[in-house]
Amino acid sequence: MQMKLSNRLLGMPFSGTRKLTPYIEKAKSDGKKIIAMYVGQPDIKTPVGFFEAIRDFQPEVLSYGENNGNPELRKVISKYYHSYGIDFNPDEIFITVAGSEALLFSLISTCDAGDNILAVEPLYTDYNSITKEVNVEIKPITTGPENGYHLPSRERIESLIDEKTKAILMNHPNNPTGVVYTDEEINMICDIATENDLFIISDEVYREFVYDGLKYTSFAHVDKVKDNVIIVDSISKRFSACGARIGSIASKNKDFVANIGKLCQSRICAPTLEQIGAIELYKTPKSYLEEINKEYEHRRDVVYELLTKIDGVVCQKPEGAFYISAELPVDNAEDFLIWMLENFEDKGEVVMVSSIEGFYATEGLGKREVRIAYVLEEDKLRRAMELLEKALSAYANR
Amino acid sequence: MQMKLSNRLLGMPFSGTRKLTPYIEKAKSDGKKIIAMYVGQPDIKTPVGFFEAIRDFQPEVLSYGENNGNPELRKVISKYYHSYGIDFNPDEIFITVAGSEALLFSLISTCDAGDNILAVEPLYTDYNSITKEVNVEIKPITTGPENGYHLPSRERIESLIDEKTKAILMNHPNNPTGVVYTDEEINMICDIATENDLFIISDEVYREFVYDGLKYTSFAHVDKVKDNVIIVDSISKRFSACGARIGSIASKNKDFVANIGKLCQSRICAPTLEQIGAIELYKTPKSYLEEINKEYEHRRDVVYELLTKIDGVVCQKPEGAFYISAELPVDNAEDFLIWMLENFEDKGEVVMVSSIEGFYATEGLGKREVRIAYVLEEDKLRRAMELLEKALSAYANR
Repeated sequence: MQMKLSNRLLGMPFSGTRKLTPYIEKAKSDGKKIIAMYVGQPDIKTPVGFFEAIRDFQPEVLSYGENNGNPELRKVISKYYHSYGIDFNPDEIFITVAGSEALLFSLISTCDAGDNILAVEPLYTDYNSITKEVNVEIKPITTGPENGYHLPSRERIESLIDEKTKAILMNHPNNPTGVVYTDEEINMICDIATENDLFIISDEVYREFVYDGLKYTSFAHVDKVKDNVIIVDSISKRFSACGARIGSIASKNKDFVANIGKLCQSRICAPTLEQIGAIELYKTPKSYLEEINKEYEHRRDVVYELLTKIDGVVCQKPEGAFYISAELPVDNAEDFLIWMLENFEDKGEVVMVSSIEGFYATEGLGKREVRIAYVLEEDKLRRAMELLEKALSAYANR
Repeated sequence: MQMKLSNRLLGMPFSGTRKLTPYIEKAKSDGKKIIAMYVGQPDIKTPVGFFEAIRDFQPEVLSYGENNGNPELRKVISKYYHSYGIDFNPDEIFITVAGSEALLFSLISTCDAGDNILAVEPLYTDYNSITKEVNVEIKPITTGPENGYHLPSRERIESLIDEKTKAILMNHPNNPTGVVYTDEEINMICDIATENDLFIISDEVYREFVYDGLKYTSFAHVDKVKDNVIIVDSISKRFSACGARIGSIASKNKDFVANIGKLCQSRICAPTLEQIGAIELYKTPKSYLEEINKEYEHRRDVVYELLTKIDGVVCQKPEGAFYISAELPVDNAEDFLIWMLENFEDKGEVVMVSSIEGFYATEGLGKREVRIAYVLEEDKLRRAMELLEKALSAYANR
């Protein structure tokens, strides 16, 4: 039988976590307690208004919603943007099934099969799969731990552009590195975009997770790229509602706004109940977000301080999201993590982080790096860093 | 500025309904009451268990669900399939964001960019858009009203196959035609698939909507195509839960099962709450589905009887789904519908159905045909057919 799956599916990798999953399961079944810092799943409570609104919504028939999204939700998101000085009207905002679909739509809109985009690596692993689904190639803007994963020079970035380059995909603040791009970096990207006629797809789901009193600049704040910018967004991290699968895509580009509705139509609508809940989330007082911000900033400080005390760790202090990426004093981080799951424990406990190799689009990069998601309470973070230090020392002396 | 949207987006049509929308809105604002038979939105109540289960689910954090879907939901769907003599185990079933995502995944899995699939036309309009999103071409198996939209000969179908053909997409029962394929037709498709090494992607969301005491044969019932078949499914029509966006994709093909998880991973999970509700839906007693079936069969009889009494209408009695497609005695059905919205009314009322042109992949076909969704109560259906007859007569004498 010659029937065969597509190359785009067969060539797609499973996520790095998946490779570690059997070892994690084994360690658990052996009775080890795992302090989990390998998933970007916040532990913050989802505002109860979300659940209350859904409980109060009791239609007789759960019918199709609007293709472009619940009008009330589009309105509150517009209001939310305006509160940050970002000018998106409700009809420039389209509700998507999480940030993933917003990204998918932005790729389909800007690229034909065989086209490419520039994207900063290490990058959110799902970028690697979603681009392959729609035959878009990633040309990686490589960054590394030695300069805190900040951008290389304009020349270096522009050298990647060819006639098939259609967009620059930014993740700001960045997952997995926690980088918040400086205004100089943002300006440089905007200049590259305008001078090379490129879209800027900016995934800003961590917009509120910016520390040290930094002022956050969205790509949607920059007037000269008004027509270039497509914003990918989601309620998952902002309101700790990862399971809701509600995101949005927004742009001031008139062609984009006139055509994106076709993609919305093609899958009819985003989930009804979760949109009802999301309306309430956007009415959450800003103080909720400010408190979360403070909490994560503190967690970042705790992890960063302890992490940099470990011999041989290379990293710089990230200013955003809830991740720290760092180089460990090992030859291969994945081997180390597997070794740790199989051979290490301290009072029955072990910590688990992500190997970062799958976050690079370039094969072979990131072998010594890991991503640490600081989504736990302080005492667990302290214990986790202690476990990491002990494990590294045991690994060196194994 | 040369920045330009992709050809795949620009070349994608908006749905036919959208073209009529401004006329519908205008008629409404003029005070006309529209009997709506242009959307496949059932009026049947969603089982209350759906809402109750969601109300009872009160986590503190709405966290990510499993990539492949809620394990309990996969279990009850497996049980549901087994109750029809279809052997899918839970690990061969993957929860998707409605049938649309199941279809998207089946296309990405079986086709690379530039590959093609055979599909019966007229077809569900969203097939036209979703295939364009992922650069899959539709080679249409054309059917028409004169033989009740049943399949052409095997020779005719096989003549469409070339080296880039990877799958046959079936919609069984069919939207928009209401056709339930005979066992002879199903066997023919299965023979074509096995002898040409093609996947069969079977969209069976109307599985329970089969009338006249016919026994329904799923492509998953046919043993010889066990490895070829990918079933696309959804709770939208079955349980009148269109807004939930919960579907599934199932296959016994081991390669497919081993790889489809990558696509599930790429968008993390389907909506959590709606999956919780869907578990309850699959526990709904079969009597619910039987009653709905009886109700729709009766509605079909009412519409069919009245429709065939109208001079010049060409159609055959469909055995499934909740649509009748028919040729009207007009040169252009869309022109007629627009005329009707603008110029016709009877005691302030007008009926609206879909023009079927956008349901054909082949340009120029279906100009005289419409799709009638009988998703209303009997008295409304009777009145609707009366309005259609009067409007056709007024149109002929205009």
